[in-house]
Amino acid sequence: MTTNEKALLLHEKWGGKLEITSKAAVKSREDLALAYTPGVAEPCKVIADNPEAAYQYTIKSNTIAVVSDGSAVLGLGNIGPLAAMPVMEGKAVLFKEFGGVNAIPICLDTQDTEEIIKTVAAIAPAFGGINLEDISAPRCFEIEERLKKLLPIPVFHDDQHGTAIVVLAGVINALKVTGKKKEDCRVVVNGAGSAGIAITRLLLSYGFLHIVLCDRAGILYKGMEGLNWMQEKMMDCTNLEGQTGNLADAMKGADIFIGVSAPGIVTEEMVTSMNSDSILFAMANPVPEIMPDLAKKAGARVVGTGRSDFPNQVNNVVVFPGIFKGALEGRAAAITEEMKLAAAEAIAGLVAPSEINEDNILPEAFDPRVADIVSRAVKDHIR
Amino acid sequence: MTTNEKALLLHEKWGGKLEITSKAAVKSREDLALAYTPGVAEPCKVIADNPEAAYQYTIKSNTIAVVSDGSAVLGLGNIGPLAAMPVMEGKAVLFKEFGGVNAIPICLDTQDTEEIIKTVAAIAPAFGGINLEDISAPRCFEIEERLKKLLPIPVFHDDQHGTAIVVLAGVINALKVTGKKKEDCRVVVNGAGSAGIAITRLLLSYGFLHIVLCDRAGILYKGMEGLNWMQEKMMDCTNLEGQTGNLADAMKGADIFIGVSAPGIVTEEMVTSMNSDSILFAMANPVPEIMPDLAKKAGARVVGTGRSDFPNQVNNVVVFPGIFKGALEGRAAAITEEMKLAAAEAIAGLVAPSEINEDNILPEAFDPRVADIVSRAVKDHIR
Repeated sequence: MTTNEKALLLHEKWGGKLEITSKAAVKSREDLALAYTPGVAEPCKVIADNPEAAYQYTIKSNTIAVVSDGSAVLGLGNIGPLAAMPVMEGKAVLFKEFGGVNAIPICLDTQDTEEIIKTVAAIAPAFGGINLEDISAPRCFEIEERLKKLLPIPVFHDDQHGTAIVVLAGVINALKVTGKKKEDCRVVVNGAGSAGIAITRLLLSYGFLHIVLCDRAGILYKGMEGLNWMQEKMMDCTNLEGQTGNLADAMKGADIFIGVSAPGIVTEEMVTSMNSDSILFAMANPVPEIMPDLAKKAGARVVGTGRSDFPNQVNNVVVFPGIFKGALEGRAAAITEEMKLAAAEAIAGLVAPSEINEDNILPEAFDPRVADIVSRAVKDHIR
Repeated sequence: MTTNEKALLLHEKWGGKLEITSKAAVKSREDLALAYTPGVAEPCKVIADNPEAAYQYTIKSNTIAVVSDGSAVLGLGNIGPLAAMPVMEGKAVLFKEFGGVNAIPICLDTQDTEEIIKTVAAIAPAFGGINLEDISAPRCFEIEERLKKLLPIPVFHDDQHGTAIVVLAGVINALKVTGKKKEDCRVVVNGAGSAGIAITRLLLSYGFLHIVLCDRAGILYKGMEGLNWMQEKMMDCTNLEGQTGNLADAMKGADIFIGVSAPGIVTEEMVTSMNSDSILFAMANPVPEIMPDLAKKAGARVVGTGRSDFPNQVNNVVVFPGIFKGALEGRAAAITEEMKLAAAEAIAGLVAPSEINEDNILPEAFDPRVADIVSRAVKDHIR
């Protein structure tokens, strides 16, 4: 049986991967009087007087919503809210298993930006945080930015920042392997959607100076037609030389290639045209932009992919559980740029200096230390 | 320590009464590939092709939202969404413990009818049903009616129908005790909010003919000033004789009094003025409209209250878990009037004819048979 067939059977057996269970026993009249009426009125009154007490007496302290409109699900595209459910449930499973965070999928029957913002704001009281998921660009940028301003709880679009943080962690260690300096590196990010743009922004925050964004139309440059508002905004901090051309042009002389794009679109020639000791993160799933053996043969020094069957898996599962674990434990009001940078450094730091090499730049997805160390990085940067 | 003090301490210890747990283990790469990518794409694709398959592969099959705006919480009134959380969590605990139904509290940061309707409609895909809770009248009527029309899943306002069903169950057996006939009974319902109106409507559906609704202003009659739209509508099917006056006037010669109102407002004189073998459900909490011993002394034959320390506890916990258990198991599109009547009959039928007496008209809240029998009643009436 293939993995896919097995997955389908298992999903049918599970009948939904999540269960909502009670910490309070209700086996007797007395139990009922404590967990429900009349006793339950006491915490209600305390919270009515002091809303902060909700963190003391309710699930808000450790529960987040995983919100999607089903518009950009995995590699499947715009499959809608119902079909997105298995992914969101899976995400909730990972939040629990890796971060101890309770997460519930909220799949929305709307893809209208204003309605999504209103809906998430309306349901926010019950939750300690909002993880946005699989919402297509550029709507995802506005939805996240507006919700961050609107809500007193952390709002985090994992497709953007989870990916950006793990990429930066990998890049930090890849620089150590290659001896390159961030200020000098020429970086090409291929894919100018939510992940590509967030990666670019975080690399800039970290101190990279020369980044060029590409997408299907080639190199993105100021004044180019067809850019969305976020891509336009990115032209103020990327491709400052105003380079034009296709992906092959962009990669000539580049030090780092980061692909969140499509299978097989990077050729050996392109890799060979890069600077020496080049670094490639080819994260298209399940088939990378170029297979690691080909990239290595063409001259790449460090190659990462999204896959677990190659070295250097770039998987945001090392990020998001710890981010919300830390934010909830520290009662952070937001996930800040400092927290993201610190999380990336912390993840990179989990690979001991003596063990860093071209095939070992990132901790394993199952490394039990990851969530705690990311969580601590977040908590250390709560203002 | 008092129950209230103990309840507060326990709520702090629990730190939220619910936990979201995973049915899928993710201890290995293979686990991850089955519960998450790449395997998870399979059920997604199947659901994208056939939305009904969501019931097969996701938590929709057995998960409901307990939705409140915190506008009418228990006896606490309009305490808002955060302070309502402990009650909604308690409700979710009862859904799970008694009905095996997964329930998650969704407390809304809006009390605007249109916004509530839009929000609930937007989050509906993830859920198999919506339990509305503690939303004040008359907004609750419109919200429920509109959502019922809008959504393909059951929407049930428990304050209305859960209460109405258990009251009808108690009334059915009280009629047996007293030998009264429903067609002949004069009924007074005191409290013209969500519960009072729903009780009245269900008693009318069951076949009662003579019902008078009262509230603080006395007997409600056609053309009376200050009625809301739902109370006005009720004037087409209640108080057809156009009686006016106060509660004492209404109770003269009445056979049944049903109170969902305020502590101690029924006097012994009022009870004495009722017909012989009178039936009183004095459900104000925690202090009933009249204490059972006083009511009995004044001539009442059957007395029920909301309390567990008196006979005949009228508690909707015998209703709502079974209602949603049945609706989800049978994939009902709605909770119909027939289902409510059948549920009341089924609950009443749990007290064996030989055991029915004035102090035993309803099954215990903890009777393990209740949820199953209510669930079966619902499933038997799915069209």
